[in-house]
Amino acid sequence: MSRTISRLIRFLAIDNSVYFGDAILPNGVTDSAAARSARIVTGDIFGDYQFTDQILEVKKLLSPLNPSQVRTIRCLGFNYGRHAIERGLVIDKSYKPVTSLSGPTDPIKVPLIAQDRPGLDYEAELVIVIGKQARDVPEADALDYVFGYTVGNDVSQRYWQVNGGGGQWNFGKCFDTWAPIGPAIVTKAVIGDPGNLKISCKINNEQRQYSNTSDFIFKVQKIVSFLSSGTTLLPGDLIFTGTPEGVGVAFSPPKWLEDGDIVETEIKNIGSIVNQISVEVRQSEI
Amino acid sequence: MSRTISRLIRFLAIDNSVYFGDAILPNGVTDSAAARSARIVTGDIFGDYQFTDQILEVKKLLSPLNPSQVRTIRCLGFNYGRHAIERGLVIDKSYKPVTSLSGPTDPIKVPLIAQDRPGLDYEAELVIVIGKQARDVPEADALDYVFGYTVGNDVSQRYWQVNGGGGQWNFGKCFDTWAPIGPAIVTKAVIGDPGNLKISCKINNEQRQYSNTSDFIFKVQKIVSFLSSGTTLLPGDLIFTGTPEGVGVAFSPPKWLEDGDIVETEIKNIGSIVNQISVEVRQSEI
Repeated sequence: MSRTISRLIRFLAIDNSVYFGDAILPNGVTDSAAARSARIVTGDIFGDYQFTDQILEVKKLLSPLNPSQVRTIRCLGFNYGRHAIERGLVIDKSYKPVTSLSGPTDPIKVPLIAQDRPGLDYEAELVIVIGKQARDVPEADALDYVFGYTVGNDVSQRYWQVNGGGGQWNFGKCFDTWAPIGPAIVTKAVIGDPGNLKISCKINNEQRQYSNTSDFIFKVQKIVSFLSSGTTLLPGDLIFTGTPEGVGVAFSPPKWLEDGDIVETEIKNIGSIVNQISVEVRQSEI
Repeated sequence: MSRTISRLIRFLAIDNSVYFGDAILPNGVTDSAAARSARIVTGDIFGDYQFTDQILEVKKLLSPLNPSQVRTIRCLGFNYGRHAIERGLVIDKSYKPVTSLSGPTDPIKVPLIAQDRPGLDYEAELVIVIGKQARDVPEADALDYVFGYTVGNDVSQRYWQVNGGGGQWNFGKCFDTWAPIGPAIVTKAVIGDPGNLKISCKINNEQRQYSNTSDFIFKVQKIVSFLSSGTTLLPGDLIFTGTPEGVGVAFSPPKWLEDGDIVETEIKNIGSIVNQISVEVRQSEI
């Protein structure tokens, strides 16, 4: 493997087959969602992969990893200084099941159980993609175990996160499609400093979150090192790194997401994912 | 598939290869840990599998599922009436990563990070093994989606579970080897009523936990139905169903686990797993 991937995408091509590819972007464009074509990559993305001569047109971008490549999805809480003011310096951690993964343009489906109380909310997050098996990794070496970074939204239902789950956040974050990621995984050689990336979230084009990963309390190196303490991280594991201020629950009154809302989550040098809220209807109402 | 599995084990045979098999027990014995041989089963355990004519001797029992067959490990909290007295009736849920899985006789390794404060504890639990993809399943149909049941210990470090994790339980339960399961997965046709199984935990042969799943607040049907609400459960998903009274933290003073302790977790009709506490040593101390 002489060449390395810059912007890994997984996509449906015009032949209706699914491929991994290194995205080809127009000159000067850094939003991977603008990829109209890609050079096809074969083999093991986290091991020996090969660049081919084949360039294919993108019909639809998919979650940049196949769900079977992802073993565990961890989510940090309160990792931005302005979001976490006066809170103790601990790394909170929740999980999403692998079934919550979805793609950069897929709808966020709101199941019946998440509709019975208000509280549907967004959380723009930088997502670390682990590239190599890691355990008890010192901070100084931690970036060696990172494959790259993608954009994610840690979609949350605050009632189930806070009250309905008995204080445990997981249930309010676990539903199918509630972990949209993409549009690409930008590898560490290309992204620049992961500790200096603008991050934002717009709802129906209204800016709600706007921050920078420089406001992280725990930097990427610390996060990977800490989470690998006594725990083996596997290639393809995803770490959602927490969200900055500006989530819906923080407004007075809260600004909950509603059916049809467009959630646009963007990180500089990676790109944007755009997901529409789609409230599921009881079978008897169809 | 005319025959169905009764007691699924995964084991190292005397040829040092790993097999799936249907355990053969001595007459009148119901502890699957007593299996000295098994009829080999091939194919997809959750789909089309075949019984072979081959019977092999068991050299060592392994975790009854290969870690790659398990996508998500969910753990309930406070699901026994006597353990949960006067607590609100909510289903709490934490997760363990798949890397926490280990076998019925494997050591429970205590990493450095879990040693710096007291709090190492045991939680004997009935573990549900999902057999079919399930979403929005009504309680009346829930058992159709269960493959069987196994014994598990939801090993926990109370400092990291309660304080160190900012109130989120996951970090205190996530370490490698902290989800020992086995000795077999007993299928639903064989186990009898999952709502009437004696469950116990002994530490160095001293009985600490002794209860019955009849004390469940949420029965298996309710658990599977609830967790499938808006969330797709996959074949091989594990659900730890909570632990009865008698955990170490509940004693005054607390009875924490220590290096070398033998943790024996048993459920009637399934069997026993026996795991020894093994405190990891700093590399520089070896």
